[in-house]
Amino acid sequence: MGEFRSKFLEVYSLLKSELLHDSAFEFTDDSRQWVDRMLDYNVPGGKLNRGLSVIDSYKLLKQGEELSDDEVFLASALGWCIEWLQAYFLVLDDIMDNSVTRRGQPCWFRVPKVGMVAINDGIMLRNHVLRIIKNHFREKPYYVDLLDLFNEVEFQTASGQMIDLITTLEGEKDLSKYSLPLHHRIVQYKTGYYSFYLPVACALLMAGENLDNHNDVKNILIDMGIYFQVQIGTDIEDFKCSWLVVKALELGDEQQKTLLHENYGKADEDCVAKVKDLYKALNLEGVFAEYESKSYEKLIKAIEVHPSDAVQAVLKSFLAKIYKRQK
Amino acid sequence: MGEFRSKFLEVYSLLKSELLHDSAFEFTDDSRQWVDRMLDYNVPGGKLNRGLSVIDSYKLLKQGEELSDDEVFLASALGWCIEWLQAYFLVLDDIMDNSVTRRGQPCWFRVPKVGMVAINDGIMLRNHVLRIIKNHFREKPYYVDLLDLFNEVEFQTASGQMIDLITTLEGEKDLSKYSLPLHHRIVQYKTGYYSFYLPVACALLMAGENLDNHNDVKNILIDMGIYFQVQIGTDIEDFKCSWLVVKALELGDEQQKTLLHENYGKADEDCVAKVKDLYKALNLEGVFAEYESKSYEKLIKAIEVHPSDAVQAVLKSFLAKIYKRQK
Repeated sequence: MGEFRSKFLEVYSLLKSELLHDSAFEFTDDSRQWVDRMLDYNVPGGKLNRGLSVIDSYKLLKQGEELSDDEVFLASALGWCIEWLQAYFLVLDDIMDNSVTRRGQPCWFRVPKVGMVAINDGIMLRNHVLRIIKNHFREKPYYVDLLDLFNEVEFQTASGQMIDLITTLEGEKDLSKYSLPLHHRIVQYKTGYYSFYLPVACALLMAGENLDNHNDVKNILIDMGIYFQVQIGTDIEDFKCSWLVVKALELGDEQQKTLLHENYGKADEDCVAKVKDLYKALNLEGVFAEYESKSYEKLIKAIEVHPSDAVQAVLKSFLAKIYKRQK
Repeated sequence: MGEFRSKFLEVYSLLKSELLHDSAFEFTDDSRQWVDRMLDYNVPGGKLNRGLSVIDSYKLLKQGEELSDDEVFLASALGWCIEWLQAYFLVLDDIMDNSVTRRGQPCWFRVPKVGMVAINDGIMLRNHVLRIIKNHFREKPYYVDLLDLFNEVEFQTASGQMIDLITTLEGEKDLSKYSLPLHHRIVQYKTGYYSFYLPVACALLMAGENLDNHNDVKNILIDMGIYFQVQIGTDIEDFKCSWLVVKALELGDEQQKTLLHENYGKADEDCVAKVKDLYKALNLEGVFAEYESKSYEKLIKAIEVHPSDAVQAVLKSFLAKIYKRQK
């Protein structure tokens, strides 16, 4: 899927340059340099899957038709909006979680002289999304829908982050509040909407579709997002509400629950080992394999009843990326 | 101007209740309670001048015509959007400035159990603005303009905050970077747009006006904003770029500048006293009085050439609130 990668990276430089010369603000030299460095540090260093998938999805919606330069540019710009949005979430999440590194380098707020200025930098990143959209989509018939989409997805992400933060606060006292439905809710809102639904929704809008007609697509993508997060949710040391711990609480007897309460969420090596042994005793690996194949079948069925072949292709392309081990 | 105050306060309760039952998110009981308390703590406790001035301005634009209940409600909702936006800025600024109190109570991030969750709460406040606008203005012909307006003003405010933060960082080494144009730029972007221009712009949109035709109104309001901030800018102890210090640097001789470099921005009582003595020696009080009357005359002249009596009335009403001492 590397077809558009180099083109996509070129678009980053162009968008950055526009933002550094935005007529709505009179930059000082210092502030222009600051934003330049902040963007390079935080925006392009990830895997770019979310951003690239806007172009891939759009191409599939156009049924493989050759895309014009303008279409590739616009899909890339929307892809970068998602990367910018993610950078905004990550910069702020790292402060809230007091994290140390991100993508193999110190978190932005830990860079010398940055500190709490990183909060305002996060805000700037979020504002850039809307500047990019305004610069390039103001005259499109779907401009309003694009604004509503990004606003709603941001709201859902922040809401998911809120219940995650509050649950962790509460959890320190009371692990019994963790449950599978709560865990799914956190995952759905905190990462599902912006990572899975948003790229496809951007492509649908560019293709002239009304998102109100695509609730089924949204639901399938959100289910994929939940599966994806379950797959990678193994934060035993953190006191996070991960799939493993909620499943263990669901399946364990009273004694095992007590062991979990006593050892979960502690950095101590012995505690981590005890939790891992418990997971083994409960055969969580097997439980996960079962969950994986069931959810895969359910998604395939949901996709194959969709009336549009082009939309089916988009959804199957996502599915193939997520369920790598099944291939 | 207390005519609409009780009506305005009623609208707060209604908007809050809508936000606590937003269908775009499935609240848990804990998270609903959290948001409820967070809103009451941060949104309605100010003087509400910005919010109320949307209704006052709208009424003046309608030339004193009786407003319908619906009009009062919509103008109040937009007024609350500005109060919500300000709450968002203040919650985050207090973290960045490491402040202790705000409006006579501890800053939100200092409330037990809140801490860095306050960053996400700030984000929620900002998202609420767009939820309110979507709930009540989605079908209005000026919906897009309202979104663009709030987005642009937020961008300008964050940009102003950025140069303020960076200048303070730099200033610790080098006071000579402070200058009157830089000071004006910080004030203009950081507080002018959202405090002075935004309420009137909301009223203009509600009255069916195109904001592109009102750049003169924007410029006058921004000038009022700069004057207003100069009037209250007396933070000697902070290492902030205030009007007093930049004026002192402009007027002082080499010896006085040296004294300023050595004593400015220190919490020590002796240092503060020396800076105050210098301000007295330079007759900054007189310089300010001169600046005040000149800027007042300039504004009056600019207002009186405006072709619309209704717009003149709005601007004069703002002027009267700001230049209280002249009345």
